Amino acid sequence: MSKRISIYDSTLRDGAQAEGISFSVEDKLKIVKELDNLGVSYIEAGNPGSNPKDLDFFTRVKQINLENAKLVAFGSTRRKGIKVEQDANIQSLLSAGTEAVAIFGKSWDFHVTDIIHTSLEENLSMIRDTIRYFKEINKEVVYDAEHFFDGYKANKDYALKSLEAAAEGGADSLVLCDTNGGCLPHEIYEITKSVAEHFDVDIGIHCHNDTGVAVANSMMAVEAGAVQVQGTYIGFGERCGNANLCTLIGNFQLKQGYECIPKDNLDQLTPLARLVAEIANISLWDKEPYVGRAAFAHKGGMHIDGVNKNSKSFEHIKPEDVGNSRRFLMSEVAGRSTILKKIQHVVPDIKKDSPETALIIQRLKELEHEGYQFEGAEQTFELIIRKHLGKYKPFFELENFKIMGEQPSKESAFSAYAMVKVNVDGKHKMNAAEGDGPVNALDKALRQSLEEFYPELNNVHLMDYKVRVLDSKNATAAKIRVLITSSDGKDIWTTVGVSTDIIEASLIALVDSIEIKLLRNLEKKMEAYL
Amino acid sequence: MSKRISIYDSTLRDGAQAEGISFSVEDKLKIVKELDNLGVSYIEAGNPGSNPKDLDFFTRVKQINLENAKLVAFGSTRRKGIKVEQDANIQSLLSAGTEAVAIFGKSWDFHVTDIIHTSLEENLSMIRDTIRYFKEINKEVVYDAEHFFDGYKANKDYALKSLEAAAEGGADSLVLCDTNGGCLPHEIYEITKSVAEHFDVDIGIHCHNDTGVAVANSMMAVEAGAVQVQGTYIGFGERCGNANLCTLIGNFQLKQGYECIPKDNLDQLTPLARLVAEIANISLWDKEPYVGRAAFAHKGGMHIDGVNKNSKSFEHIKPEDVGNSRRFLMSEVAGRSTILKKIQHVVPDIKKDSPETALIIQRLKELEHEGYQFEGAEQTFELIIRKHLGKYKPFFELENFKIMGEQPSKESAFSAYAMVKVNVDGKHKMNAAEGDGPVNALDKALRQSLEEFYPELNNVHLMDYKVRVLDSKNATAAKIRVLITSSDGKDIWTTVGVSTDIIEASLIALVDSIEIKLLRNLEKKMEAYL
Repeated sequence: MSKRISIYDSTLRDGAQAEGISFSVEDKLKIVKELDNLGVSYIEAGNPGSNPKDLDFFTRVKQINLENAKLVAFGSTRRKGIKVEQDANIQSLLSAGTEAVAIFGKSWDFHVTDIIHTSLEENLSMIRDTIRYFKEINKEVVYDAEHFFDGYKANKDYALKSLEAAAEGGADSLVLCDTNGGCLPHEIYEITKSVAEHFDVDIGIHCHNDTGVAVANSMMAVEAGAVQVQGTYIGFGERCGNANLCTLIGNFQLKQGYECIPKDNLDQLTPLARLVAEIANISLWDKEPYVGRAAFAHKGGMHIDGVNKNSKSFEHIKPEDVGNSRRFLMSEVAGRSTILKKIQHVVPDIKKDSPETALIIQRLKELEHEGYQFEGAEQTFELIIRKHLGKYKPFFELENFKIMGEQPSKESAFSAYAMVKVNVDGKHKMNAAEGDGPVNALDKALRQSLEEFYPELNNVHLMDYKVRVLDSKNATAAKIRVLITSSDGKDIWTTVGVSTDIIEASLIALVDSIEIKLLRNLEKKMEAYL
Repeated sequence: MSKRISIYDSTLRDGAQAEGISFSVEDKLKIVKELDNLGVSYIEAGNPGSNPKDLDFFTRVKQINLENAKLVAFGSTRRKGIKVEQDANIQSLLSAGTEAVAIFGKSWDFHVTDIIHTSLEENLSMIRDTIRYFKEINKEVVYDAEHFFDGYKANKDYALKSLEAAAEGGADSLVLCDTNGGCLPHEIYEITKSVAEHFDVDIGIHCHNDTGVAVANSMMAVEAGAVQVQGTYIGFGERCGNANLCTLIGNFQLKQGYECIPKDNLDQLTPLARLVAEIANISLWDKEPYVGRAAFAHKGGMHIDGVNKNSKSFEHIKPEDVGNSRRFLMSEVAGRSTILKKIQHVVPDIKKDSPETALIIQRLKELEHEGYQFEGAEQTFELIIRKHLGKYKPFFELENFKIMGEQPSKESAFSAYAMVKVNVDGKHKMNAAEGDGPVNALDKALRQSLEEFYPELNNVHLMDYKVRVLDSKNATAAKIRVLITSSDGKDIWTTVGVSTDIIEASLIALVDSIEIKLLRNLEKKMEAYL
């Protein structure tokens, strides 16, 4: 079986309604290209009527040649009491110049009478007229029946009439929306089934996650006859978010044999999720099915043991099929075998009962007690193992540092200075730098003093910098854990530092980050000789 | 209808298998009390055989008188080839002294032969013997059929035989586990139905979220006859987590009329979710259904307008029913009406078309462009409105500050010093403090210099301190947004600061946090005169 499901992505429109999300035009252009590469069928990219920034976007997006997806502009039906062509929002929508438009209208009588304050009959005309207008100029029209399920439950006849009006207008698809996200799977199934049997137009589904079942609801709708599935790529959207498309693509394609995107692109699910999160400037939820950092992370000793024997024992799919990877976590419940695997990665011939193994586990427990956590910072853990096994020689020593900062007056900006002294193979180098704050000043002073010895540090940059207060009861004197994620454009690595002082914690992570880069470079140079 | 569903919480056992989760004994005792207060039926609190810390816990938990819940200790069937009473893990489990025990065993033939390497027959004996042993000493026994659904799909006869062995041993309930989380709702429904029809023992369900449908799967199982639902309170657990109990309690009780917890406790769902997250030292996911910070947050202009007219227009339930609250977010898509509401909260008589409204919106846009974000920091926004409307007089002025820090040698700790000079009503006060790092030193120096004027600052403390790098391409010189959440033991408020310098950003948020506290105090004093 390979029934086709159209994936309709609204990350850039409904997704932008999520708390904390704001896309620049450049952000949107980048995401459009990536979604098209993945192979979704529709990209709903904005609402030109409500947001002037979107008009600029639609002008610029015309430069992009889409291979797989149709671009969609989103807007409302005409307003009550006026002609379609007189409605400024409709004209904005038209000026977006997309091949397809999505028109949303009201299916719930209560919304017609109590929210937009018009007659039930006029609402039907608004739907019919608007769709007909766009069909007459040869646009593909997706009709979003807002609040369809709530409307159906409240007044079934009227809800169906609103769909009939859309069909009469010539809509190419009728999308049933659970706008408030309060419906449960069996309701979605039954209502979608009755609609799909009633209309000879493609049926779509648009779910929200307010009851935690948006993915299941979307699947139920497909079971009942829907062929278009709307959602946002990593699930963000108004309130609890929209149906999560990367979960749905995984479920449909890997579990049910539907075709949503080209098969060869499935391993792009995870990289794209991370990219979308990065562009949106949010943290991808670790527990996200298929694509989250923890989706194939094993912590319990028995689970780790099982996966080592046969991965299907505790994994429902192979992580690499969706571009993700397996991780074994280190912790009190992990057991020695996980830690041993990490150690063996550095020193392949070490044994479970070697005295070094016990020593490292001991040190790990001490550091965890101090507030370290290596689950997100495997590289720092690698350095600790190396140091304990004598498999490490630091590339430099930070002999001392001093920072100063002052705000001489309210007008001029605060500035900070740092002095550092490093020792590389007995050569001392002192350096000072001015920076935007002490961490930046220290970072600069440190890099400048080291670049003379290690020019490869030139292309290393900090990607993310996370601070976690560990013991909130101690206010600003609490223990602070800093995670620094660095990149040289190809590899990405994360190091961790803990201290009661944010500067010191940052410095520890910064020094480790530089050490890791220098170690990796050395390993690459060595490869030629192995 | 008020069919009863037993809620079986495994936050302290399966939840502790999640990445980043580690509970102390005190943490566990606190969570047990709170879950009991909420009214769940079972609290699975640890695995005494695999974790010695859990034994200490089970000794201490005996001091707590539980009102609603039964405490459960979790462990495996006996190991292969030995007698139950010779198995050290079984003896640990017994020594926990709980009223009920959960025993997990293998239902999937592949796990028996390829992972634990024993015969199919011996596995059945392990299940039967172990359960019988605990039944003979009058324990309630919950039997967790690990990998039941995968087992049923691979070898239905053997999976059912494993349940029969448990029933023969006398198990009080048979819990069907989707251990790998790969099953879909219709599979769960059909398999659970066939089991429920086959056995005359209570059926339970235990789902994981690897396909994003753990909540729906649990509901399907109940539909098919299950009466016990296992999960973790806010959904954390191995990999993508367990079925989320606070979502399920909301769905079962508010949507389907089942009884899970006493009705009057429903408004504890949100406070308890926040408490569990705090104890677990994780951020509660904003988008969590029912209990997340964004679950009733509205951003789109039309949504806000609708909710203002009638909350059911865009909310599936009333937020207060689950102890949550509604929020209107400020942003480019929010529209003037949201911002107006915020302004009117400060100055009730201001109008939509007042020139001040336009000015504030302009200033808001400028600040957002600089990297401010008020969605999580409404209090800073309040101060901005007040400052713009002339409804504000600062309680103090920070005239200048200076920080210094040094690490004189590798042995001694880094230390930092700060000097501040404040002006309160023309009185100048200079102060210096030493701290764990510059932010802490500044915080101390600032508070000490102000407490002389405002003794009420004495009980204010920092609860959370979040740092976000805004433009990651600029490394440590990137713009940094600091969110500081403060509390005086009763109220909680959040302020925000943005700068390229982490110290300055922290200071801005810190100053606002103090100003808000002083403003609230003044308002409280005023109330007596209004």
